Amino acid sequence: MTTLHDVAVRGFASDNYSGIHPEILTAIADANGGHESAYGADTYTARLQQVFASHFGDAAAAFPVFNGTGANVTALQSMLPRWGAVIAAMSAHINVDEGGAPEKIGGVKILNVPTDNGKLTPELVEREAWGWGDEHRAQPLVVSITQSSELGTVYTPDEIAALASHAHARGMRLHVDGARMSNAAAALDLPLRAFTTDVGVDVVSFGGTKNGAMIGEAIVVLNPAASDGLTYLRKLNMQLSSKMRFISAQLIALLEGDLWLRNAQHSNAMAQRLRHGVEAGIADGSIRGVAFTQPTEANGLFATLPAGVAERLRTGFRFYDWDAARGEVRWMCSFDTSEEDVDAFVAAIARETSV
Amino acid sequence: MTTLHDVAVRGFASDNYSGIHPEILTAIADANGGHESAYGADTYTARLQQVFASHFGDAAAAFPVFNGTGANVTALQSMLPRWGAVIAAMSAHINVDEGGAPEKIGGVKILNVPTDNGKLTPELVEREAWGWGDEHRAQPLVVSITQSSELGTVYTPDEIAALASHAHARGMRLHVDGARMSNAAAALDLPLRAFTTDVGVDVVSFGGTKNGAMIGEAIVVLNPAASDGLTYLRKLNMQLSSKMRFISAQLIALLEGDLWLRNAQHSNAMAQRLRHGVEAGIADGSIRGVAFTQPTEANGLFATLPAGVAERLRTGFRFYDWDAARGEVRWMCSFDTSEEDVDAFVAAIARETSV
Amino acid sequence: MTTLHDVAVRGFASDNYSGIHPEILTAIADANGGHESAYGADTYTARLQQVFASHFGDAAAAFPVFNGTGANVTALQSMLPRWGAVIAAMSAHINVDEGGAPEKIGGVKILNVPTDNGKLTPELVEREAWGWGDEHRAQPLVVSITQSSELGTVYTPDEIAALASHAHARGMRLHVDGARMSNAAAALDLPLRAFTTDVGVDVVSFGGTKNGAMIGEAIVVLNPAASDGLTYLRKLNMQLSSKMRFISAQLIALLEGDLWLRNAQHSNAMAQRLRHGVEAGIADGSIRGVAFTQPTEANGLFATLPAGVAERLRTGFRFYDWDAARGEVRWMCSFDTSEEDVDAFVAAIARETSV
Amino acid sequence: MTTLHDVAVRGFASDNYSGIHPEILTAIADANGGHESAYGADTYTARLQQVFASHFGDAAAAFPVFNGTGANVTALQSMLPRWGAVIAAMSAHINVDEGGAPEKIGGVKILNVPTDNGKLTPELVEREAWGWGDEHRAQPLVVSITQSSELGTVYTPDEIAALASHAHARGMRLHVDGARMSNAAAALDLPLRAFTTDVGVDVVSFGGTKNGAMIGEAIVVLNPAASDGLTYLRKLNMQLSSKMRFISAQLIALLEGDLWLRNAQHSNAMAQRLRHGVEAGIADGSIRGVAFTQPTEANGLFATLPAGVAERLRTGFRFYDWDAARGEVRWMCSFDTSEEDVDAFVAAIARETSV
Repeated sequence: MTTLHDVAVRGFASDNYSGIHPEILTAIADANGGHESAYGADTYTARLQQVFASHFGDAAAAFPVFNGTGANVTALQSMLPRWGAVIAAMSAHINVDEGGAPEKIGGVKILNVPTDNGKLTPELVEREAWGWGDEHRAQPLVVSITQSSELGTVYTPDEIAALASHAHARGMRLHVDGARMSNAAAALDLPLRAFTTDVGVDVVSFGGTKNGAMIGEAIVVLNPAASDGLTYLRKLNMQLSSKMRFISAQLIALLEGDLWLRNAQHSNAMAQRLRHGVEAGIADGSIRGVAFTQPTEANGLFATLPAGVAERLRTGFRFYDWDAARGEVRWMCSFDTSEEDVDAFVAAIARETSV
Repeated sequence: MTTLHDVAVRGFASDNYSGIHPEILTAIADANGGHESAYGADTYTARLQQVFASHFGDAAAAFPVFNGTGANVTALQSMLPRWGAVIAAMSAHINVDEGGAPEKIGGVKILNVPTDNGKLTPELVEREAWGWGDEHRAQPLVVSITQSSELGTVYTPDEIAALASHAHARGMRLHVDGARMSNAAAALDLPLRAFTTDVGVDVVSFGGTKNGAMIGEAIVVLNPAASDGLTYLRKLNMQLSSKMRFISAQLIALLEGDLWLRNAQHSNAMAQRLRHGVEAGIADGSIRGVAFTQPTEANGLFATLPAGVAERLRTGFRFYDWDAARGEVRWMCSFDTSEEDVDAFVAAIARETSV
Repeated sequence: MTTLHDVAVRGFASDNYSGIHPEILTAIADANGGHESAYGADTYTARLQQVFASHFGDAAAAFPVFNGTGANVTALQSMLPRWGAVIAAMSAHINVDEGGAPEKIGGVKILNVPTDNGKLTPELVEREAWGWGDEHRAQPLVVSITQSSELGTVYTPDEIAALASHAHARGMRLHVDGARMSNAAAALDLPLRAFTTDVGVDVVSFGGTKNGAMIGEAIVVLNPAASDGLTYLRKLNMQLSSKMRFISAQLIALLEGDLWLRNAQHSNAMAQRLRHGVEAGIADGSIRGVAFTQPTEANGLFATLPAGVAERLRTGFRFYDWDAARGEVRWMCSFDTSEEDVDAFVAAIARETSV
Repeated sequence: MTTLHDVAVRGFASDNYSGIHPEILTAIADANGGHESAYGADTYTARLQQVFASHFGDAAAAFPVFNGTGANVTALQSMLPRWGAVIAAMSAHINVDEGGAPEKIGGVKILNVPTDNGKLTPELVEREAWGWGDEHRAQPLVVSITQSSELGTVYTPDEIAALASHAHARGMRLHVDGARMSNAAAALDLPLRAFTTDVGVDVVSFGGTKNGAMIGEAIVVLNPAASDGLTYLRKLNMQLSSKMRFISAQLIALLEGDLWLRNAQHSNAMAQRLRHGVEAGIADGSIRGVAFTQPTEANGLFATLPAGVAERLRTGFRFYDWDAARGEVRWMCSFDTSEEDVDAFVAAIARETSV
């Protein structure tokens, strides 16, 4: 086989449109050769435990899995009895983007709450935090937040601490969907544990794929008392990789050094460049009719466009509709987004909005 | 990261203890770079359809997934209503090695039948093929066989044709767990379709991981009328890879040329070398107390060992207990098993059984 | 055993706090004696088909089950593929009062929409009616409404016709949770089919228990093309009664004559009497600080009370808090609520609100 | 409604073809009238706790449910983590007669073992009691037996004690499907606790329906440490009756006095009469070609008949085929089977086998 696609083409559709960071590909190759025990009893998965412990504290236990939906559903099941429910933002990936897997596979009812910016608060959690002991109500026993959020916003450590404290006071546990957790760390300029372990998070779904890995996420248990049976649930949920060494090697490559942070800092910086470029265009009149709908705190931007603009822009750049009804789009930057990509996109936006 | 394990060590534990075939690793690298649409809307997954069609016929539709359990459970769900059951050999991977995922995730009751050699026959199927229309009985609507079987045996095309014909006559569909289907093709010296599409198989779980891939299997629908909703079920079952191009690229690398066959022929040949080596030892008295319990038709061998021998052999070579109660072990050869590996193992067997 | 409770005590907690209507108890006794085939192959269940057909049209097929949750979950499963979702009002019983059974047992994601009065409209449905073909979104393929609603309101035939038409135009089916459907018919002064079969409803969960039965509901399929596998699903969902004749006999007793209507008319009339009594008290100043939050169209009333009043009222009458945060309560009338009960309750409200 | 069936017809099909014992019907009527709290917070359900405690010991906690499948699946879920499996006889009702509900609804894999007489032994359990800690194997954590068994046999207290001891020693719990537990007590001439609580049984599914109730079973937890979450699971599994007083009243009527025992003694006695009648016929040559395949220890009989006999007998008496392939039938006696019924059936057998 040879390369079938145009490697020069990049866009703003998703950080999972990008490929494998070269250092991660090297790590896969380094882990190759010879025989290693399957299903996680290998050298790389053992080392990975140390790597995660260095970031999240000694109590951290990592369970590599294939993808984010698998990480989330499996993590939540491990935190909940069969009759449990999860309080989450209406915009949460688990609520809107996992095809019903949390409900259908996990048996988890999601009690969702509308938010302005994708972020829960104790007050918002409180709307669904009731009914314990009443068997007619799925029992709210976990709060799940996404860091950075699906709307490109970032929780501060204090905000997460408040949620953890609120949840724990009511007998609930706190899960973080960290598909883009590295971007949050880069945005906050803080170590990962500063807004997880140190502020009371119980279990994390840690994302690798959207930050330069090929295939690889990990469920990271920070509070061992908050999760049960992950070994079995991972297998049951069909998330147990036989050649796990290659998932672990990718996550080691990301997390042993600072690749996770470099990648995240870069994609965040490209998002800022895009934001500033568009805002400069709005200010000088070269870009018209574009308005941002969310602050740009990580690597995603959300904006409304004049009618027809999205369609014309897509002849050169891929990106997602977010809320088609109101003309809102999402632009996502990746570890391999270049300054040239951004500048060309800003120029195209100017061109298409000044028609 | 650097290599953490000893790449010179190989054993006979499982074909998933081996790593990535170099040509497949190259294919992953070739598919890297630039942005490609996620979740299967990429160039490689499109090409993969053609590749599978070249092997299984033009009607074949392939759905790449992460692992074998995911392939089996998702395939079976797509072939069954919620009230369906599957007739399978008691030794089937779906019955004994998937942690209950077919039942718990798939909602599939397995009606299992004891076999001598891991292979179903129409007569064995008939034992559980009854009760249609009776809601007290989970409805047997799929027969699932494994080719090559978990016991290292291989169905002939005629045997599969008879099962397909029998199943279809009773309104049931035929699924093949093909985690080691390439080994069966190599053993039979036949193209893949000769014992699948051409003899009435409806849906296949096609395995890449055990034949040199890193992570990658595919559900292959041969009879479109026999499977429904795979697009949705794959997502629901958390088997939808975002960067799918890298799974597809691996399967292309395997199947576009003859790598799938070379790998399988090699592992089969190593199994034969091991069988002959041990049998020669038995014949000349250098190996004592060892008896094979199954014919060696693909890449796995099953034998009983005298007490204590397995333990001593394991100081140098890893392999699985199969039925500890009767002293039965399994030896599995892989695409990277070398003649030296085999010969050293035969020598060790001789040494340890002549103590 | 003798009677253990005070048969003179009645309240306004729920129509399922009441007992068995005497005519229904007689019907159970009439169906007793001798042997009848189990699991629905009995004379009474056969007759029940005719009875339901007389109300809902000749295509109607009835499947007796134990309870409303069982009826709803089983009906919805029969209308949906494994990847289906249901659009429902946020206040729907399936969303808030079934312990997550639709999600956990049925595998059904509920896409809920806030409403003012418990009633969906095509516009409200439209908010969640999107994303078909996208496997990341649970597929909205059924709209479920409750008639009469959980907030005591009643859909007109035109309103249901509009919902059915809207749903069908988008490839969705219409389910009605009819736990209190008889009360709706009484309120509308229309036959049951006028707001179901005749306006496009596909499947109904028809309630008996809240209208004087002991134990008994039925799933009634009005459009045979909209439901599949109920025979199997009822068994799977553990809703198949062995001595089904006694459930069928209850429903026959309700529906063969006009008992269903008499009971519903009576409980509705008692609700009106209570509404008018309280409103008269408000008008003449004898009742203070009480406000109704919903129109009273069937047998349930919703009102806010001044602080402390609910607690004092409960020394004499049981009723439910509805939204404790805003002091809202629910008062439910039953087939056996008497005029004296109502008048005594109005007097108590006056007494406790004038303190 | 009037009576629609012939109350003079009885047969040998099943104890659930019979109706409601008059004392139970009276108890339903006694529990009627006035309002009682729904969902189990009523006087009758409270009393029922005392009644079960009087039979099973003070630690016993009873959860009334609708039917046997609901009792079994809910009980097993409460005893198992999501990854648990149950060891049961191949002939167990949970394995062959519940439509796959234990697997599909309960998520419970059943590891079944063939038996001669429907009864497990520690040796038979041992065949599947392995693999703890291996996530590839559904974890065997419960042993489930049926007392009296589906084949009409009865475990002695010593046999159950041995199973409990064996199960507990391996970290497993013991569940008893007691759909016909009263018949076992009658057969053993022992109180219920002698072969349950006193010998280590953890949880019982106690049957009422087959012993004269209309609708009503109970999950009875004997060891509180062996079951978790039944309150929630009963609701989730759609087994929570709103007018629960009427289920509890039935079970009180059965168990408060000796009705449970009288009914069971009677049906057992009728089974003995039938057995002796047929055996006498065999001995004196008036009955030819009939052979019993199981001992008759409770109220069910199993026999093989000459070809054609079953069909002819069915013109007058209903009964089930058990294993059609070998001409085996089941004859079941009930609380209302009369001596005349038995004698007429024996005469018919003689008549039809001497043709």
